[in-house]
Amino acid sequence: MHFSIDRKYFYEKLSVVSRAISVFSPLPALSGICIDVKSDQIILTGSDSNVSIRSTIVRGELNQLDIDSTGSIVIESKYLLEIIRKMDCTMVELELVDYSLVRISSDNGQFNLNGIQSNEYPNIDFSQPTNSFELKSKDLKDIVSQTSFACSDKDTRPVLNGVNFKASNNTLYCSGTDSYRLARKVLPLQINHEFNITIPSKSLNEVVRSINEDEESIHIYVDSKKAQFIFDKTIIQTRLIDGTFPDVDRIIPTSFISSMVIDSKELAGVIDRTNFIRNEKIHLIKLECSSEITRIKTSSSEIGNSDEVLTNCEYTGEDITLSCNGTFMLDAIKALNSEKVKLEFSGLMKPIKIYDPEDDSVIMVIVPIRSYD
Amino acid sequence: MHFSIDRKYFYEKLSVVSRAISVFSPLPALSGICIDVKSDQIILTGSDSNVSIRSTIVRGELNQLDIDSTGSIVIESKYLLEIIRKMDCTMVELELVDYSLVRISSDNGQFNLNGIQSNEYPNIDFSQPTNSFELKSKDLKDIVSQTSFACSDKDTRPVLNGVNFKASNNTLYCSGTDSYRLARKVLPLQINHEFNITIPSKSLNEVVRSINEDEESIHIYVDSKKAQFIFDKTIIQTRLIDGTFPDVDRIIPTSFISSMVIDSKELAGVIDRTNFIRNEKIHLIKLECSSEITRIKTSSSEIGNSDEVLTNCEYTGEDITLSCNGTFMLDAIKALNSEKVKLEFSGLMKPIKIYDPEDDSVIMVIVPIRSYD
Repeated sequence: MHFSIDRKYFYEKLSVVSRAISVFSPLPALSGICIDVKSDQIILTGSDSNVSIRSTIVRGELNQLDIDSTGSIVIESKYLLEIIRKMDCTMVELELVDYSLVRISSDNGQFNLNGIQSNEYPNIDFSQPTNSFELKSKDLKDIVSQTSFACSDKDTRPVLNGVNFKASNNTLYCSGTDSYRLARKVLPLQINHEFNITIPSKSLNEVVRSINEDEESIHIYVDSKKAQFIFDKTIIQTRLIDGTFPDVDRIIPTSFISSMVIDSKELAGVIDRTNFIRNEKIHLIKLECSSEITRIKTSSSEIGNSDEVLTNCEYTGEDITLSCNGTFMLDAIKALNSEKVKLEFSGLMKPIKIYDPEDDSVIMVIVPIRSYD
Repeated sequence: MHFSIDRKYFYEKLSVVSRAISVFSPLPALSGICIDVKSDQIILTGSDSNVSIRSTIVRGELNQLDIDSTGSIVIESKYLLEIIRKMDCTMVELELVDYSLVRISSDNGQFNLNGIQSNEYPNIDFSQPTNSFELKSKDLKDIVSQTSFACSDKDTRPVLNGVNFKASNNTLYCSGTDSYRLARKVLPLQINHEFNITIPSKSLNEVVRSINEDEESIHIYVDSKKAQFIFDKTIIQTRLIDGTFPDVDRIIPTSFISSMVIDSKELAGVIDRTNFIRNEKIHLIKLECSSEITRIKTSSSEIGNSDEVLTNCEYTGEDITLSCNGTFMLDAIKALNSEKVKLEFSGLMKPIKIYDPEDDSVIMVIVPIRSYD
């Protein structure tokens, strides 16, 4: 194995595949990047066994790749990235000099790193699933930012740790829920597919972080075992979560007794200010709503209490007083990222529906909390 | 106690005194800011019992302070700062409503916080020591950034946890050492003083962080027990470290067998690149110097090795090969912050002197490490 390549280009590609690598690697070889040099291209692979990223480098003007001899090796990701990032040269040369010793050299100096032989690297199946569709990068980013925050971070029900993607009748339904709240985004699909899969929210966040700013669209391939996201000669592949995702349609309320339209910034500000007034770590807020005045109160016997009136607020319907998790409400408002939000109340202890009054393709649902005061 | 004040102004002053407050407070009251309202001013105090900061607010155009009644209270620093920072109003009102309950209010809402009565706050003696001198803010900042990094962070010899300030013959000698390296800065003093005190490096860093950008000079008052730094109606006071500071003049080498002048960025770059090649967590670098070629090598049986030639380097004198701690060398180069650095060698296993060839008011000394290869 012996090749030379533009240092900056190589660094960028190494960075992309390194995102899949975990510091707590289940297998020593997985803490490294696998470099596989073919006669006409280099294949870089990084994986934590759940998410795997593969990037292919083909010789071109940008990378100045020059392959002298083929071969493969695994190099500890953090060392390789640090060297390539810090080297003070335009081109860098990598050579397997002896067994698993890799020489990385420039004009002034050289590093010899102990690598791991590539036969110790697990064989990752990058074969392409059959169901395929395309999403705009922006849509994929929005799906992840508007639904994944609502996923559970507890281990009790693994299926809730992921975002559910359900395709049916030319429509894609994306839902995240921890059973106390729900975030759902609905998009039209160009092609009619029928699938129902749950992708770990951690993997989705990795995918989104790896997408370049200038990437227009992402090709997505799914089957019952895995999902692949493909762009710019890079494949990001993730395993799916087994199990049946709950039927979230049932918890989206459809009849209401009252509703409120309010400036998002104001509502977020009031909730955020009281964030430190907590009861057993939960930020409980009490909404007192009537057509005359709407206020948000918090109270903690240890810390103190607060009482603030909402000013830019239109409230219609029955008076209602209920309590909910302020952190959930704030997350929902931030994820909607709209000028105004509409809150629809279906009754005491019944779910609250929250959405942008101008666009109901994204909806948030929060279950109230019983409070005794 | 009842007053109103410009919110932003109040927040800035609270931020300054809060810097002294530690999350690991030895006394519950010390996790709070003491607010003492007099008829014509407010005195804010924060302390972790080692460092104490006192800031006085006198009514003025900038703060719009209006005192309705006097009194005092201690409020949990993190809650008070969060409320005052996040409130959406220009003026804020504070009132002691009942025993130790404080009302913080604006037009739209209010917070009631459980405070601590001020008689539970320790009595901190802010009386002024007799020895006084003045330093430009920039000089004080330079002293701290160029010497405190060399202080010890271990508990074995407490006196080495501080920077020693020795005044003698109209000169101020500031020294930090952990016994393996030394950083010393020398400045002229306007007034002749004789003192020899050691200030905790942690306190000095607090002082420097608290100095406003536009502060020209700092008044410093010292005696054998404490040091005070005064600027803009703010007093930062720190206890001193007891014990005799070692006579560091003895370890500064005076005769040399060779020297090297090199571009600082290049030397720092070469050392930084090899930072990850460590032996039992120590970044050992080997300098091989001769008038023909100078190179830096590192080696670790586990990770690998490196070898780089220094190009922008003038070396004169006997050939020498020695090893030292690369982290220490890098710290010294960064603290000098000069275009070039001069390294003077006094022999195998003898201290290396490092300084800016254009300015020897700051010198660094590093003791080599014996290496067996």
